[in-house]
Amino acid sequence: MKIKRIRTIGLVAMAALVLAACGNLKNSSFGSNDSSNTATSTKTTTTTGSTGSEFYQGVIKNGTYRTSKSRGVNVSQNDNVMNLKSFETGLLDVSKKVFSTEKYVFQEGQYVDSSTVENWLGRVSKSNPTGLNPKNNGKKGATTRNPIYLQQLEEQDYMIQNGSKMSLGGVTVGLGMNSVDYYQKVQYGATYETNISTTELTAQGKKMANTVLQRLRQKSALKSVPIVLALYKQSSNDSLVGGNMIAYAVSKNGSTSVSDWKSLDWNNYVFPATSESKNSGANNNDESDFSSFKSHVENFFPNLSGVTANAHYKDKALSKLSVNITTKFYSETEIISFTQYLATAAKRYLPSGVPVEITVKSANGDIQSFLARTAKGSSYYTHIFSDQGNN
Amino acid sequence: MKIKRIRTIGLVAMAALVLAACGNLKNSSFGSNDSSNTATSTKTTTTTGSTGSEFYQGVIKNGTYRTSKSRGVNVSQNDNVMNLKSFETGLLDVSKKVFSTEKYVFQEGQYVDSSTVENWLGRVSKSNPTGLNPKNNGKKGATTRNPIYLQQLEEQDYMIQNGSKMSLGGVTVGLGMNSVDYYQKVQYGATYETNISTTELTAQGKKMANTVLQRLRQKSALKSVPIVLALYKQSSNDSLVGGNMIAYAVSKNGSTSVSDWKSLDWNNYVFPATSESKNSGANNNDESDFSSFKSHVENFFPNLSGVTANAHYKDKALSKLSVNITTKFYSETEIISFTQYLATAAKRYLPSGVPVEITVKSANGDIQSFLARTAKGSSYYTHIFSDQGNN
Repeated sequence: MKIKRIRTIGLVAMAALVLAACGNLKNSSFGSNDSSNTATSTKTTTTTGSTGSEFYQGVIKNGTYRTSKSRGVNVSQNDNVMNLKSFETGLLDVSKKVFSTEKYVFQEGQYVDSSTVENWLGRVSKSNPTGLNPKNNGKKGATTRNPIYLQQLEEQDYMIQNGSKMSLGGVTVGLGMNSVDYYQKVQYGATYETNISTTELTAQGKKMANTVLQRLRQKSALKSVPIVLALYKQSSNDSLVGGNMIAYAVSKNGSTSVSDWKSLDWNNYVFPATSESKNSGANNNDESDFSSFKSHVENFFPNLSGVTANAHYKDKALSKLSVNITTKFYSETEIISFTQYLATAAKRYLPSGVPVEITVKSANGDIQSFLARTAKGSSYYTHIFSDQGNN
Repeated sequence: MKIKRIRTIGLVAMAALVLAACGNLKNSSFGSNDSSNTATSTKTTTTTGSTGSEFYQGVIKNGTYRTSKSRGVNVSQNDNVMNLKSFETGLLDVSKKVFSTEKYVFQEGQYVDSSTVENWLGRVSKSNPTGLNPKNNGKKGATTRNPIYLQQLEEQDYMIQNGSKMSLGGVTVGLGMNSVDYYQKVQYGATYETNISTTELTAQGKKMANTVLQRLRQKSALKSVPIVLALYKQSSNDSLVGGNMIAYAVSKNGSTSVSDWKSLDWNNYVFPATSESKNSGANNNDESDFSSFKSHVENFFPNLSGVTANAHYKDKALSKLSVNITTKFYSETEIISFTQYLATAAKRYLPSGVPVEITVKSANGDIQSFLARTAKGSSYYTHIFSDQGNN
C-alpha cells in the first residue's frame, strides 16, 4: 500500500511537471494566456506536449494516456495495417479542417465503446438490430450477395482546454468503406472478392453516416457539439499504400442529418508505377524526379534490392513522399556513406516543397538509417541507427 | 551501346553536381579554399557529402561508392551483427583521434582484399602460412585447445582531397579479438566455448597487430603513411550490445612495429541491469535517470512490452544512449500521442549533454516512431512513420 501511495503522488507531481514543460497549446481565445502557467499539483488532466503545430496534443489523465473506448477493434478489422494507419491519419487531417491544432486537444474516442462499434460493423439482423451493414441475403455470388460495406469505424474527440478544465469541443467519426469485400463461401474456405464501386460505397457511406449521426446525437454529451463525419475508401489487402479519405461533412448546432458533403481528392500512389498501378492521377514530373533519384541511388550502390516510394496527393498536388530503400547489409561504414549520399541526392533530385522521408532497411527489415525533410526545409535531417540489428 | 554512353556522361555530370552541392570538406591546409569550387566535368572522384562534422565524407568513384576490397568478409565472421556495427563505428571513432573529419575523407579499405583477410583470419598451417590464429593443436578441451583469437579484421583508408586529386593520407586497421571462441568438437555438433581473458586477448592482439603492420609496410602505397592499429574485444553472441575498442597505437614514418599502445576505457551496458549484467561500470545516476523515464513511460501506456536502453560509455562518462521501446500497436493516433509524450518525458528524465536516440517499434519489429537529441540539443527531433507497416 505504501508503495502504491508513493507512486500516486509521483504521478500527480509528474502531471504537473509535464504541463509545465510543454505549454505549447495556444488557448488565446479562452481567457488569459497565463492560466496554463499557474498549474498546481491538484491537476490530473494534462496533455502529451506538442511536437509541432502539425499534430494535436493528446490527453493524459492521471499520468496515463486516455485510450479509446473501442481500442483495438479496428486493428482486428484490418488485414492491411496501412488501411488503419492512413484511415487514422486521414481522420486527423480532415479534423484539422474544422478543429485547429492550436485550439483543440486530441482525445481518443470516449463515447462509442468496443461492443457498440462491433455491433455497428456487423450485419443488421434480429440479434444485431444496430448493424449498419446490410442483412445476409443468403447468396454467395460476388455480385448477387450483399457485401460488407462498412469495414471500420472510429471516433475521435477534440477537447478544449481552459485553464485546468478540459471540455469536449467536437467529435469526428470516420467510416472506412470497402472497395473490395473479402468473403468465404464456407468457413475456412477459399477467399472470394466482391468489388464495390466508389459511387456505391460513397452512397452507402453517406447513408450510414447519417444513421451514426442520429445515434450520436442521442447521447447527452454529444447533443450539440459539432460532429464531423468522414468517409474513407479502404484499399485492397494487397495494396502497398493505404486507402484515402473521399468526403466529409460537418453537423452543427445539434443537427441530426447532413447533406452538404465535401469531396476530397486525396490519393496515394506507389513509385515507380507498375503495369497494375498506372498512377494515372500522379504528376509526371514527380514520377520522373523520383526516377532520376532512383537511378542515381541504384548506381551508387551495386546491391540495392529496392527503391520505391509512397506518394501522397491532395487535390492533384504531391503532399508527401515516403521513400523506402532496401539494401543488403555489408557494413556500417557503407550505411553511413550511403546515407550521406542520399541526403545529397535527395536534395538534388526529389521534389521540393513537400515533406519527404527516406528509410533504409536491411533485407530482414531492420532499419539502418533514416532521412527526412519538412515541406519548408531545404536540408535533410539524417540519422544512422548503429544500435539496431539483433531484434 | 548508345544507352551506355549516355549513362556514362550522365554520371560524370552527376559527379560534378554532387561535388558542387556539398563542398563541406574543409581543405584549408591544402592550398586555396576555392580549389574545390572550380570542379570541372572531367573529375570522376568525389565525395558523398557530409551530414555533420561527426562523420567522414566517403569516396565516390564514377558515381559509384568505392566498396571495400574485402567487402562482406566481416558480415560472415559475425553471428552477432552488433559486433560488426560497433567494431566499425569504434574504428571510425579511434580514427577520428588521428585523422580529423574535416581534413580526411573516408574510403573503404582498398589494400587488403577478401582472400588475404580470409587467410589472415585462419589458423596458421602448411596450406595457410599467413594465418594469424594459432595452429590447431589437435585438442578439443575448452582450456587445452588453441582458440581462435582473431575473429575479424578491417582496413579503413583515410584520404586527403586536394583540388581534384585524392591521395592516401593514412590507414586504420582494426583487429576484432574474441572474448569467447565458439567451436564444435565434431562437424555440425554441439557448440562449445573457450573463454579468453582480456589480458590474453590484448596480448595476442598486440602481437598480431605488429605482424599485420609489417605486412602492410611491404606494400609500396603503405610504406610511409601513418597506420593506426586498433584492438576490439568482441562481445559474446548472445550479448544485446556490441563489443568495445580496447586499445590503439599509431605507427608513423614507416615504422614496422608499435609498442606505445593507448588503452581505451570504452564500455556498453544494457539498462535496466539484469542479474547477469550488473553494469558495474555504469554510472548510478544514469541508471536511475533511465529508470525514472522507464517507469513514467510504462505508466503512460498500459501495454508496453519493453523499455530498454544501450548505454555507451567512454572513460566512465556516458557518451550515447539508445532507448528501445516495443509496444503493441493499437492505433496510429496512440503512436502519435505516445511519441509526443516521449519527447516531453525524455527531455525531463533522461541524462542531458549526450546524444540520445529513441525508437518505438511494434511487436513484429516495424518501426513506428523515432526521437533523437544531439549532445548539445535541448529538444528532441521526432518522426512518426505512418508509411511503415506491411513489410
